[in-house]
Amino acid sequence: MYYIGIDVGGMSIKAGVADINGNVLHKTTIVTRGNYDAEYTISNDIHKLIVKLLDEANIPEEKIAAVGIGQAGSIDSERGIINYWNNIPMKNVHVVEELKKWHKMPVFIDNDANVAALGECVFGAAKGLRNVMLVTLGTGVGSGIIIDGKIYRGEYGAGAEAGHMRIVMNGEPCTCGGRGCWEAYASVSALIRQTKAAMEKHPESMMCSIAAEMGEVNGITSFKAARAGDKAALEVVARYIEYVGTGLVSLQNIFRPQIFLIGGGISKEGEFLTDRLEKFVQNGMFDKETGDPVKIRPAALHNDAGILGAAALAIESVK
Amino acid sequence: MYYIGIDVGGMSIKAGVADINGNVLHKTTIVTRGNYDAEYTISNDIHKLIVKLLDEANIPEEKIAAVGIGQAGSIDSERGIINYWNNIPMKNVHVVEELKKWHKMPVFIDNDANVAALGECVFGAAKGLRNVMLVTLGTGVGSGIIIDGKIYRGEYGAGAEAGHMRIVMNGEPCTCGGRGCWEAYASVSALIRQTKAAMEKHPESMMCSIAAEMGEVNGITSFKAARAGDKAALEVVARYIEYVGTGLVSLQNIFRPQIFLIGGGISKEGEFLTDRLEKFVQNGMFDKETGDPVKIRPAALHNDAGILGAAALAIESVK
Repeated sequence: MYYIGIDVGGMSIKAGVADINGNVLHKTTIVTRGNYDAEYTISNDIHKLIVKLLDEANIPEEKIAAVGIGQAGSIDSERGIINYWNNIPMKNVHVVEELKKWHKMPVFIDNDANVAALGECVFGAAKGLRNVMLVTLGTGVGSGIIIDGKIYRGEYGAGAEAGHMRIVMNGEPCTCGGRGCWEAYASVSALIRQTKAAMEKHPESMMCSIAAEMGEVNGITSFKAARAGDKAALEVVARYIEYVGTGLVSLQNIFRPQIFLIGGGISKEGEFLTDRLEKFVQNGMFDKETGDPVKIRPAALHNDAGILGAAALAIESVK
Repeated sequence: MYYIGIDVGGMSIKAGVADINGNVLHKTTIVTRGNYDAEYTISNDIHKLIVKLLDEANIPEEKIAAVGIGQAGSIDSERGIINYWNNIPMKNVHVVEELKKWHKMPVFIDNDANVAALGECVFGAAKGLRNVMLVTLGTGVGSGIIIDGKIYRGEYGAGAEAGHMRIVMNGEPCTCGGRGCWEAYASVSALIRQTKAAMEKHPESMMCSIAAEMGEVNGITSFKAARAGDKAALEVVARYIEYVGTGLVSLQNIFRPQIFLIGGGISKEGEFLTDRLEKFVQNGMFDKETGDPVKIRPAALHNDAGILGAAALAIESVK
């Protein structure tokens, strides 16, 4: 039997068919540009994508044990509903119910950070571990919490929003309307702001020439210059480590997971990033003497993370 | 069948025998003053207390289904070990193994905040709920996390230390060696510091006369004056609500539990405290539209909280 993993993004939907070991046999994409003019259209698009995928892969629907969907926004996975999605305005969309009209196999939906964390447990950097926390650093800060091998969601699936922990009381404004959220300091968007501010102060910094070469300031700018020993960039990275690390200290003290994984584009900085974070958290955490030292690693599933995470949701849900 | 609940404190150990509905049939105490000169002595004291309790209650040991122990410090409940206890220096004490030498019934041990949270779920203010968070405000800030009806402990039982979330990056020093921990702002010890500072600034405040009358500044001082409308005291309470509330916002966004319970002596302030906290968290939390509004209530098990929590641990562990 096979499993379908579907990764719903703002501009396109990706789908892949995988076996139980996480081998992706075939994948395909449709561009949607988020054109959801009516409630049912997203379900309709997912349906058409499933048909296209199986057709291209030449696999009959009877060979599919389950479908998993990873989707940004607030997802009520128990009821199979998208509560709401801030990127593309939609509320209370009954995706699973709609898809049941067209397909017989069971369908499961969950938040994209949650399925990414599960995917790492089933196929990736946390294979075989039961208590795992994935933190994705990107436009925002997402978190996926795996407790005893299962996704932790909170009531109505509205939990696991560690990006909105407060790390600086009454600090920087956050997109959520609050102040001092972790996301306002530790997201890549925040890092870009921090990089730009340092570049203004230090026009001699290598960050400026790197940005000119790349045509933009992005999440890599400061890390690239820091690796080359640029002083101002090393300061930007050190402060960013402190921002990310402060939130991780809190999560370590609350959860004591077996491992933290760092996802998002910045995870490509690898151990240059995670070794520094590990040192910061080990130094700051509560009760250093009990158990193992803190473990922080880059997430392992890069390009196929969305599809494999959603496939893992399908696999674990029908186990 | 009956259950024994044991509450180990720094100066004494309390024990009670309860039925499955949380009726305490008999309770007793021994004073220890924490005189544990050798590893086994705490187990020996607990053993003697069990014998004393059953003797006084006139209940044969065969009628006891299980024993639960609630104990401060870092507890590895899976292995039945006190990892360490900062109040009375001890490390790796195998309590459960020692007690098995004297008793046949199963014995379970867990952190005191964890069993208090479980006790509230089984007998108290969160009866019948499955996702519950208890925050105890006292000398420190403790937390007990119940997920799907079970205590969440983290690896080696070293988790659930929400008091050591960072709410002010590089803020006030904490007893744990870190800076800016929630405990450094939201504990009753911190409230007393905040009250004293306000009294110095406002010698006209009612807090000064209340403290003189009571012979000390304690956790009640500011609340008592605030209830009477004293301006400086209202400011102290408002700021304290902000400190406690900021940590609760983070926990709400991470966990989205069904209910938060506030324990510790200050919970006697009742809804004067929890209504204000509820308003603060509702206003500051992420994704206000999904699910139910935040619910914050005082813990319900006061004097017998330790015994009933430990009894609940015994009941749930043999279920």
